[in-house]
Amino acid sequence: MSGVLQVVGLGPGDPELMTLKAARLIGDAAVVAYFRKPGRVGHAWTIAHKLISAQCEEIVFEYPFTTEIEVSDPRYLADMGVFYEECAGRLAEPLAKGVDVALLCEGDPFLYGSSMYLYDRLRASYRTEITPGVSGMSGCWSRAGVPVTHGDDVLSVLPGTLSEDDLVARLLSCDAAVIMKIGRNLAKIRTALTRAEMLERAIYVERGTMAGEIIQPFADHARHHAPYFALVLIPGRRGAR
Amino acid sequence: MSGVLQVVGLGPGDPELMTLKAARLIGDAAVVAYFRKPGRVGHAWTIAHKLISAQCEEIVFEYPFTTEIEVSDPRYLADMGVFYEECAGRLAEPLAKGVDVALLCEGDPFLYGSSMYLYDRLRASYRTEITPGVSGMSGCWSRAGVPVTHGDDVLSVLPGTLSEDDLVARLLSCDAAVIMKIGRNLAKIRTALTRAEMLERAIYVERGTMAGEIIQPFADHARHHAPYFALVLIPGRRGAR
Repeated sequence: MSGVLQVVGLGPGDPELMTLKAARLIGDAAVVAYFRKPGRVGHAWTIAHKLISAQCEEIVFEYPFTTEIEVSDPRYLADMGVFYEECAGRLAEPLAKGVDVALLCEGDPFLYGSSMYLYDRLRASYRTEITPGVSGMSGCWSRAGVPVTHGDDVLSVLPGTLSEDDLVARLLSCDAAVIMKIGRNLAKIRTALTRAEMLERAIYVERGTMAGEIIQPFADHARHHAPYFALVLIPGRRGAR
Repeated sequence: MSGVLQVVGLGPGDPELMTLKAARLIGDAAVVAYFRKPGRVGHAWTIAHKLISAQCEEIVFEYPFTTEIEVSDPRYLADMGVFYEECAGRLAEPLAKGVDVALLCEGDPFLYGSSMYLYDRLRASYRTEITPGVSGMSGCWSRAGVPVTHGDDVLSVLPGTLSEDDLVARLLSCDAAVIMKIGRNLAKIRTALTRAEMLERAIYVERGTMAGEIIQPFADHARHHAPYFALVLIPGRRGAR
């Protein structure tokens, strides 16, 4: 009998925004696994570590890149594919021995989470269970005090890596939007929001629900670079009703 | 000193998918408030009731409609506006006396939640805090085992109340989609998905994470009506990578 791969959403950053189920699974786990950037303790560990028992084995996956490579770059897919294969192989060892593994994932695992790439590779061979988490964007719009969608609003979640024209077209076809993956795309996003006449209602949130949180009108945000845990919120047109 | 309006997300239905913070706020609350349909105990109460203390006062808001009225119907806005004004007035009483109120809300409060309409009316006069929750859609795609967005996928959340042409256009401009507010729109949604060539990968989820859960290919779902807690998931094109 093989073990169960428990994919566990940790929520947006504040450890109290973890679910009761996630807290139980982490506290009971004999093996936890998580991603981190090289040289960091990692966001997943930071959120969860107080719940990890002293006897628990930790499997750590260090991302092969210290700076971002665009998803459109062929190297990205090739190198990340090799990396995810290796990670899946390491998870398969305890699973094959009948030991459950809790794979920790910031936010909601199935919404742009790295853990999906391991799930995709292991789901055919092992039992899996997904515990959803509060998404990073939910954490951000709650902290900003901005109801994002009312009534029949259309919400779009857009990566900032889209071209400027693509961003404008997609912004114009929704009522509310969240722009993720800001990083080096800040200036382009600002131009796209200006063209779509949405700059005035756009809100910048960095490190939402965490220490060092920044919430401000995007129009006031002068920096041309933003960290990974940043997004831009454009509340729906019916927000004022 | 007035009380604090605590808007508390309850998650998608399974009580264990509530956050640690929501459980703490509900357990400590002297007053809780929630919406329900007339004649029902209500979804919010069903999720939270085991945590509500025996001494806690409950303020219950019964929706004025037992069947759905389209948001586009002028009566809807007028009647709902009167209803929400009354609800906000009832919350203002304990708040003005310095008593905190926990307003319970299924899913994530700021993602299409009724509680936003009370928040919008009370935020200028009272202190507020929002506790995000796991959204209904996160609960559904986790239970379905369907990673919804990978890499740079664009995700759109579309209300099923859109016209067929609108649905098709918006489906064609995203990679992944969630269609909410299925209700009487099931046949129209099926036609739109067929026209957008997305019917084959669409998954129907009803009562995700709750008793009576149904998960099946949407193409196999023959009924022409669906309950409120139903949605259609269209995973991103990069889901197979």
